Amino acid sequence: MQPKMTIAELQSFIARDFPQVADIYLVEAIGEMSARIRMTPDARHLRPGGTVSGPSMFSLADCAVYFALLAMIGPEALAVTTNASIDFMRKPEPGRDLIADATLLKIGRVLAVGDVQIRSDGSDAVLARASMTYSIPPKS
Amino acid sequence: MQPKMTIAELQSFIARDFPQVADIYLVEAIGEMSARIRMTPDARHLRPGGTVSGPSMFSLADCAVYFALLAMIGPEALAVTTNASIDFMRKPEPGRDLIADATLLKIGRVLAVGDVQIRSDGSDAVLARASMTYSIPPKS
Amino acid sequence: MQPKMTIAELQSFIARDFPQVADIYLVEAIGEMSARIRMTPDARHLRPGGTVSGPSMFSLADCAVYFALLAMIGPEALAVTTNASIDFMRKPEPGRDLIADATLLKIGRVLAVGDVQIRSDGSDAVLARASMTYSIPPKS
Amino acid sequence: MQPKMTIAELQSFIARDFPQVADIYLVEAIGEMSARIRMTPDARHLRPGGTVSGPSMFSLADCAVYFALLAMIGPEALAVTTNASIDFMRKPEPGRDLIADATLLKIGRVLAVGDVQIRSDGSDAVLARASMTYSIPPKS
Repeated sequence: MQPKMTIAELQSFIARDFPQVADIYLVEAIGEMSARIRMTPDARHLRPGGTVSGPSMFSLADCAVYFALLAMIGPEALAVTTNASIDFMRKPEPGRDLIADATLLKIGRVLAVGDVQIRSDGSDAVLARASMTYSIPPKS
Repeated sequence: MQPKMTIAELQSFIARDFPQVADIYLVEAIGEMSARIRMTPDARHLRPGGTVSGPSMFSLADCAVYFALLAMIGPEALAVTTNASIDFMRKPEPGRDLIADATLLKIGRVLAVGDVQIRSDGSDAVLARASMTYSIPPKS
Repeated sequence: MQPKMTIAELQSFIARDFPQVADIYLVEAIGEMSARIRMTPDARHLRPGGTVSGPSMFSLADCAVYFALLAMIGPEALAVTTNASIDFMRKPEPGRDLIADATLLKIGRVLAVGDVQIRSDGSDAVLARASMTYSIPPKS
Repeated sequence: MQPKMTIAELQSFIARDFPQVADIYLVEAIGEMSARIRMTPDARHLRPGGTVSGPSMFSLADCAVYFALLAMIGPEALAVTTNASIDFMRKPEPGRDLIADATLLKIGRVLAVGDVQIRSDGSDAVLARASMTYSIPPKS
């Protein structure tokens, strides 16, 4: 199954429907059942010490899998996050972008499930991993 | 085991260490192994339609359990969130505060675990539930 | 919403459809959106030292929420577990039954979500907590 | 960091300390921060229809990550599962072995975290994914 959206189309979708993150999330790659999102944190997302906050990483994880899903099923769908499980393992390195690699494991009739790993740009160490479930609304 | 902090002490701690949420999080109650936090969302936390975003609910869940934990062990500790699992079940009602009821299930030597349920103010329906784990640093 | 099954009906259902656990799981209570299950472990479920194994507690958690759900929607449904998150916090006390208290938080069109806490009989300390999600098949 | 145990050493450890699964779990590979376990289900693990039960897949997920961890830190450690999150996505195919691929993401001072994916032998589709956290006891 090939993606239904290009990087440019997904980036335009984000600009329109996710304006609050459009300037900090960059779609770097879309693949079959996968997407890579780069986050350039700004002051809103930083904790004292310059590391990205947990909720900001949660948001990145959620968006990365969601964008990977939209790229596969098309932007008309309004999937809703129903479950998330996240492990925070290491602190992000200050001053670095975050790279989120999302992989979809299932796109079912009513549920989609994906995994995501977040790293600091240029590092192999996984800062956080998450699995996300989305409920896909029935077609009207 | 009785809490080591009063509501006023915890609120002061939030004002100092969590300035970005100090104006929207109100500590309503502290009990033995529990806390209730009221969130008054502002525009930053709203999605189109006026409902609170998922990451904002995640942040509330995380903070509520964390504050319950700090109230029990004292504000000097620097516990770190290591794992979170959250179920989003219903959309928040627009224009309502959110109420987060956190309960600690364990405060161990190295890990603390708690549960939290989030409701719209005045409603019994649980919008989201989460369980959170914190790593407690060794005493130096 | 009242339960559609009595304790006796649920116990009969378990005997017929879950024969492998029928002799160790006792339905102690069914309430509105809740159920209490007693597990009397046998040798299969014990680890060296006499404590109940993690997978046996997972199975109890899964069954307790599932039985609470069946009691509400009736035994004809074939709900399937789609997600589980479990925290193991304390070791069960050897030689004691386990008590699982399940609470349903949502019975939706396609998903049901519930929570469960497991204790050793006669103890207040929560050994494990879990949240479970079930996919409810469409009515044919 | 290289593994401290060979496949044969890990299999011997399982035979001694996990006798109840020693005949159904085969260590197929040990790598740096990874392990592959093959499960040959027997009647105890099957549901009506011949598919492996959810708790049996949970147990396989738990063991696979645990074995990967032991291979890295050595068998003397007595790590304890503290948290598990599992998504069940597809039914196992009847009559097939299950293959669990475990990857460790972190081995910290007190916590280790790993991921695992379970497939039917010969199939690419992921049946279940899980993330597991273990508490590592302090060295005495």
